[in-house]
Amino acid sequence: MSLTLKLHFNLHHHNHANKNTIITNTNYINRNTCFSNKIQPKTIYNTNPLIITPRKVDSRVMQGECCNKIIKSSLIEPDGGSLVDLVVGERERDLKRVEGEELPKVKLSKIDVEWVHVIGEGWASPLRGFMREDEYLQCLHFNSLRLKNGSVVNMSLPIVLAIDDETKGRIGSCSNVGLIGPDGDLVAILRSIEIYKHNKEERIARTWGTTAPGLPYVEEVITPAGNWLIGGDLEVIQPIKYNDGLDNYRLSPKQLRQEFDRRKADAVFAFQLRNPVHNGHALLMNDTRKRLLEMGYKNPILLLHPLGGFTKADDVPLDVRMEQHSKVLEDGILDPETTIVAIFPSPMHYAGPTEVQWHAKARINAGANFYIVGRDPAGMGHPTEKRDLYDPDHGKKVLSMAPGLEKLNILPFRVAAYDTTENKMAFFDPTRSKDFLFISGTKMRAYARNGENPPDGFMCPSGWKVLVNYYERLQVEEQAQQPAVLST
Amino acid sequence: MSLTLKLHFNLHHHNHANKNTIITNTNYINRNTCFSNKIQPKTIYNTNPLIITPRKVDSRVMQGECCNKIIKSSLIEPDGGSLVDLVVGERERDLKRVEGEELPKVKLSKIDVEWVHVIGEGWASPLRGFMREDEYLQCLHFNSLRLKNGSVVNMSLPIVLAIDDETKGRIGSCSNVGLIGPDGDLVAILRSIEIYKHNKEERIARTWGTTAPGLPYVEEVITPAGNWLIGGDLEVIQPIKYNDGLDNYRLSPKQLRQEFDRRKADAVFAFQLRNPVHNGHALLMNDTRKRLLEMGYKNPILLLHPLGGFTKADDVPLDVRMEQHSKVLEDGILDPETTIVAIFPSPMHYAGPTEVQWHAKARINAGANFYIVGRDPAGMGHPTEKRDLYDPDHGKKVLSMAPGLEKLNILPFRVAAYDTTENKMAFFDPTRSKDFLFISGTKMRAYARNGENPPDGFMCPSGWKVLVNYYERLQVEEQAQQPAVLST
Repeated sequence: MSLTLKLHFNLHHHNHANKNTIITNTNYINRNTCFSNKIQPKTIYNTNPLIITPRKVDSRVMQGECCNKIIKSSLIEPDGGSLVDLVVGERERDLKRVEGEELPKVKLSKIDVEWVHVIGEGWASPLRGFMREDEYLQCLHFNSLRLKNGSVVNMSLPIVLAIDDETKGRIGSCSNVGLIGPDGDLVAILRSIEIYKHNKEERIARTWGTTAPGLPYVEEVITPAGNWLIGGDLEVIQPIKYNDGLDNYRLSPKQLRQEFDRRKADAVFAFQLRNPVHNGHALLMNDTRKRLLEMGYKNPILLLHPLGGFTKADDVPLDVRMEQHSKVLEDGILDPETTIVAIFPSPMHYAGPTEVQWHAKARINAGANFYIVGRDPAGMGHPTEKRDLYDPDHGKKVLSMAPGLEKLNILPFRVAAYDTTENKMAFFDPTRSKDFLFISGTKMRAYARNGENPPDGFMCPSGWKVLVNYYERLQVEEQAQQPAVLST
Repeated sequence: MSLTLKLHFNLHHHNHANKNTIITNTNYINRNTCFSNKIQPKTIYNTNPLIITPRKVDSRVMQGECCNKIIKSSLIEPDGGSLVDLVVGERERDLKRVEGEELPKVKLSKIDVEWVHVIGEGWASPLRGFMREDEYLQCLHFNSLRLKNGSVVNMSLPIVLAIDDETKGRIGSCSNVGLIGPDGDLVAILRSIEIYKHNKEERIARTWGTTAPGLPYVEEVITPAGNWLIGGDLEVIQPIKYNDGLDNYRLSPKQLRQEFDRRKADAVFAFQLRNPVHNGHALLMNDTRKRLLEMGYKNPILLLHPLGGFTKADDVPLDVRMEQHSKVLEDGILDPETTIVAIFPSPMHYAGPTEVQWHAKARINAGANFYIVGRDPAGMGHPTEKRDLYDPDHGKKVLSMAPGLEKLNILPFRVAAYDTTENKMAFFDPTRSKDFLFISGTKMRAYARNGENPPDGFMCPSGWKVLVNYYERLQVEEQAQQPAVLST
């Protein structure tokens, strides 16, 4: 239980520390700049709650030369057989920095850095860098990569780095480049590079199944990007940190695997989310654990895994979500003994059936062998038409058929709704459908924004309060900003 | 040599017979209606030149109960292990027609019938009907289908049948429907149907990598189609015939395999085309045969395989192309002893890297184990921008990486151009690039349309004459039609 207590303690601190640095700007870039500028030096979670817990010697975990290296594990094998780790060892860093200074430079956006983080820690294993053209084409056309040994791994989202004509010209015929973060620091070296055309229209059409204007990732990332893509092998100079008080939740696939092994997990079920957890979610996660126990697993562990990278402007920001998730654990809605909360560092594409494969594949690399998939995963409303962008059932169908994901057990989401006869979230019973109330994400946000309470039992009150507080602060900030905008 | 002589004899007839029924309307539908209405009863090629040649007993070809059934063959295995043949046996036809009369009806367009033809003869093996949703989604997302035994076959183009709301309403809960051709005849029965949404935008975006207006297949087929797709198992009442004088060239995969076996082919190399054959193509095909002989094959056979279904309005029509191809054989540019000319009945999508996979996969089913791929296969200009729709190299790259095509040998096209020092088509030599003249399809058509001659040695004169004649007739017809249009 020490884990839980530490978690709550830290979260209270966080809440307090954030009072005067509240995130109000709905624009993503500003919101995140705000993170790093204002909160930076004060690490709220100054210890990693998972890593510091006393490590018991586990007979299944054999230790090699390096004390952290797991040689044997009962967890699902990472894609490609071994987990990619591209972060340079401490002793080599200075040398790499000196080398990097000499190379042509490529400036990274904040979201590019998120991808460096994702690739560097092995979430995209066996990918070892930004995609070269052969990987990019396989990804676009087949949502998978064929490895040299003939085996196939899933890879549905292009993980690419765009550069403009001027940068391409500066690189010339050099075969390595230095990648520079938004603050001017050398973040990584990209080796044996390949530069190829960035056909944005084709990339968008094949990834999203639409080219309609208004797709968040397209507008934020692709439209302003250069006309070239640069692929190569990545060497990350040092672990990526955001200094937003949440870094200790950013456990790498390796750290997660170590923790699953330490807890003697014989099944790991992942729950990807980018929204607050309500009691319907919790019911589903608890029910999944029950079903896994019934199947004969002795110790199924839940990976509650909120997405931490780019999200669209009207999604609830990461820090608020993390605080809300902590309340759910604090209130005992989810059991901390069998739950690990960590941040998945990937940016969000909102590319529905294409993206859900990425979400699932990355969790294989983190050790999950069960993946819960809901209605319309990674979906959103069509940006120009009054309908969902994707058929709500396609996500789970595509996931169940996706090449390279055969080894993953897909657990379709059972529909939960508010049962008005029992005043709680329950699995929907179609024989008495009129007893059930469906509360969508939009409706939930509207409740919170208007200061209304949802029906009792929809969400734990302390978690709900986190949302209400967020929207209150947001409105105050929006009102404060309005005159300033008008006066310019 | 009897084959060649018969071919020429027939083609002369064809040429003559066509004098007064010349195809002038550049609109596809009209052009084809014209075919079936005017030429219909007069079969120009009244015997199939391949099937009637004396059949020698071949030790490798074991005959089963049915005299045409090949039990053993050294040819490449069809996708899924056995060739699909969905044409109902003669004895059952009347019974099926009676049954079909009782079923709800779905009206087919001319292009739908082309797809019935394609599926029914097994070009799309192991597909046994129009796609159900699980096949459609795998096709759209992965360009491949996973079979029950876990193996993967390529399937890049959605082969689907669209219906409108009214038809869906009429079908109700029936599980079988009758498919009715444009003339009102029962063409096929579709069994165990599944009706699902036709998201046109997503289908177009994922198939073409663009949603720009002006894609020929989209405008002709998808935009006017209904909002539902109907999948199921197909039973084709009788072999599909077009009565355009070219039916004897429409050899099924089964017939082609029989002919390859009869000729004792130990390698079959397929050349897909929708354009006239110039001497650069011929050089490539002859060179490929030479290379295959050098590799140790004893009898490589060329399948010269023009596409016979829907093509865009400014492509050269099928009958003109077939006449032109015959001249190339007649002039000895290609050797009839080692060449089979047949028609591939598929409609054309112009979907570049996505479609070239379909073109290659279908030829596996016809027995080809080598596939020649050129620059920008199945490509076209971008419909709204001044550039090629696809990167000209992507077709061959995607083809070489495509799931399910591993067993096919991809032969990249060597660039041929007109060598002005030798006055002939030759493989391009970059060390003396200024000696070479590139004659694109557009340029070739411009020459023919303007009655100009291309340089000597570009194409055999008799083949060139076929093109010049076609464009002359086209211009006469266009001029004749213009006043009629103005007077309405």
